[in-house]
Amino acid sequence: MAGPLPVSPLAPKGGFPDLPVIDGVRFATIAAGVKYQGRTDVMLAELSPGTTIAGTFTRSKTRAAPVLDCQEKLGGPSDGAAAILVNSGNSNAFTGIKGVEAVQALTATVASTINVPAARVFTSSTGVIGQPLPYERITRVISDLGNSLKADGIADAAKAIMTTDTFPKGAAQTVEIDGKTVSIAGIAKGSGMIAPDMATMLVYIFTDAKVGFDDLQPLVSGLCNGTFNCITVDSDTSTSDTLLVAATGASGVDVAGNGRFAAALFDVMNDLAKQVVRDGEGATKFVTVSVNGATSDADAKQVAMAIANSPLVKTAIAGEDANWGRVVMAVGKSGAEADRDRLSIWFGKVEVARNGQVADGYDEAAATEHMKGDEVYIGVDLGIGEGKSTVYTCDLTAQYIAINADYRS
Amino acid sequence: MAGPLPVSPLAPKGGFPDLPVIDGVRFATIAAGVKYQGRTDVMLAELSPGTTIAGTFTRSKTRAAPVLDCQEKLGGPSDGAAAILVNSGNSNAFTGIKGVEAVQALTATVASTINVPAARVFTSSTGVIGQPLPYERITRVISDLGNSLKADGIADAAKAIMTTDTFPKGAAQTVEIDGKTVSIAGIAKGSGMIAPDMATMLVYIFTDAKVGFDDLQPLVSGLCNGTFNCITVDSDTSTSDTLLVAATGASGVDVAGNGRFAAALFDVMNDLAKQVVRDGEGATKFVTVSVNGATSDADAKQVAMAIANSPLVKTAIAGEDANWGRVVMAVGKSGAEADRDRLSIWFGKVEVARNGQVADGYDEAAATEHMKGDEVYIGVDLGIGEGKSTVYTCDLTAQYIAINADYRS
Repeated sequence: MAGPLPVSPLAPKGGFPDLPVIDGVRFATIAAGVKYQGRTDVMLAELSPGTTIAGTFTRSKTRAAPVLDCQEKLGGPSDGAAAILVNSGNSNAFTGIKGVEAVQALTATVASTINVPAARVFTSSTGVIGQPLPYERITRVISDLGNSLKADGIADAAKAIMTTDTFPKGAAQTVEIDGKTVSIAGIAKGSGMIAPDMATMLVYIFTDAKVGFDDLQPLVSGLCNGTFNCITVDSDTSTSDTLLVAATGASGVDVAGNGRFAAALFDVMNDLAKQVVRDGEGATKFVTVSVNGATSDADAKQVAMAIANSPLVKTAIAGEDANWGRVVMAVGKSGAEADRDRLSIWFGKVEVARNGQVADGYDEAAATEHMKGDEVYIGVDLGIGEGKSTVYTCDLTAQYIAINADYRS
Repeated sequence: MAGPLPVSPLAPKGGFPDLPVIDGVRFATIAAGVKYQGRTDVMLAELSPGTTIAGTFTRSKTRAAPVLDCQEKLGGPSDGAAAILVNSGNSNAFTGIKGVEAVQALTATVASTINVPAARVFTSSTGVIGQPLPYERITRVISDLGNSLKADGIADAAKAIMTTDTFPKGAAQTVEIDGKTVSIAGIAKGSGMIAPDMATMLVYIFTDAKVGFDDLQPLVSGLCNGTFNCITVDSDTSTSDTLLVAATGASGVDVAGNGRFAAALFDVMNDLAKQVVRDGEGATKFVTVSVNGATSDADAKQVAMAIANSPLVKTAIAGEDANWGRVVMAVGKSGAEADRDRLSIWFGKVEVARNGQVADGYDEAAATEHMKGDEVYIGVDLGIGEGKSTVYTCDLTAQYIAINADYRS
């Protein structure tokens, strides 16, 4: 890389948030030199005995070895302690049997060093694809990691999992249940890129809530559909995307079926998902695409994603051009049911098209003014049903091309 | 637009080809000032009585008024003369009832002026979307067009239908059947863009072969699947894409079911389709993506299109980076059946990956050398079946962003 990338103009104004300590979780980070020297690139989270771990993963057919290992381990016995080990610099993807061996070596070393069952050690890797992971660079520092675990280390952990993210991502919520406080804190890395690497989204959320796997997993899967599965930067899907939610139970508050806990967890996931978009490669605009009036929610999402992934829509937004013709085009190509002559479109609060043609009294100056802001809203009413969906994306700029084509490792 | 775009570096070296005169077809062009002054923007083709016309059109759900009109007219009686009228500068798309009125005014004027049944007048429009077509600028010049029709006007016609294409596109074949010569000549416009307009692909092919609609239409539809439906510039689909094939019968050679005619027509369509890719916005590389070993041809095409449309694959090609990890990623996200550990990949003749990991003796220098050429070949063997597909695309460069974001009308 030719020097560090500038921090995204869409980064949260207040910097990294003050995350609460989650009882039952300790963190350590270290510079292991997986790919680059002199930057922290490994984080270890230790989870107290009885912690429930749920998760969701990339649906790619070419999933990386650590993803397959995590998927196998979910839902196993939760009585022992647990651990999450994450490295950046190498994704251990498309590495065949060597990839499996690397995961086994890492999990075995963590298990023996901090006394956790190997079946409860979850690993993620992000970075270059197709090169065997030099896992001995990591195994040799596990004992150092084990010796430096601390309860207030989550901000350092957020930094250790970054690749070319331009800011670390964190979010938290606390919720009062039965007179006690339940805390949720999460970190994420987004679609940074180191040529010739690929983007990976990694998310780790910790809570002291008490909840079993059979209650936590469906909640996490459901909320994931409404948060992380509703964002897109460039329509490309990583082989390594991983979300893990760890509930230590240390608060003693049983949250199974609790709506307020679900809402708080949603808020944390939604916040992190939007931060990933805000750090989309080359992004200068945060874009909300809201579709209603579809024949089903699935159709609405198909239309919303077709708009959010359209290179022509995204470049128009980058150019601050109220180009609603490209929105019409994206609706038309989405494959979802649509009727050209019932379609209406808004940019911000400005109605630009109604029932298949330009709206009466359409104010192009007002629409253009909306496009100049750093938050763009595109509303679409298909006018043929009750289905609705909202997705989040960013614009497509020359900086995206520069990051992914011009910069070479 | 800030001045004309430079001619694509991928333009055919020999310039516009010498197209044969097709007996039964005459062309005229004119500068009608539909959007810009002083450039030819309307072309009229007059077709002799008995000409068979077949076609295929965009599958968009928000198709433009002239597309819907063409679709209705296909397959009607073919005893009268016929005409094709095309304008650039305004696509007459998303214009409601005004769009239908414009098509009716244009077809009625052509019909009465050059004595052709209105049901045999086909129109296309390409350019800005959502603005009513100022059709009276065209109707008032129809008699001038009718008075200047000539048999050797196809090269001028190829220029009149351009928007921001950087070169006119033509292709021809002749084939000897039963001792007589059958000629085929076609023109196309590709994915040029005038902000805030959208790309439209328009293709018109003329032949003096004798063939009825019931034989010509299935041939055209079938060949379209293997040619124009196998190209992609940016995954966005126009509301106006139109392909019309007109067979005048003037050669007297009946080509129904003739394999050599079908092969020659394929060659013309394939040539024009590749020229459209060669003029893809900002393109610097012509890319062939060939997938085999899939469980079906449909799955192979799904994988090939996922690779060809991936922004990360396309930016890597722009950067001349032999980044096969991004190809793995695109295979994984395609949704088609795949087995990571049977997947093999080639860049040019260089095998980069075999059975889910880097190939033994992989020569990165040789792969990088291949990427530096202006023709890039990506081969993928999924290793799980007999399905295969080849698609064509171009790279994604900063110039694409400039054309679609920075340049403003």
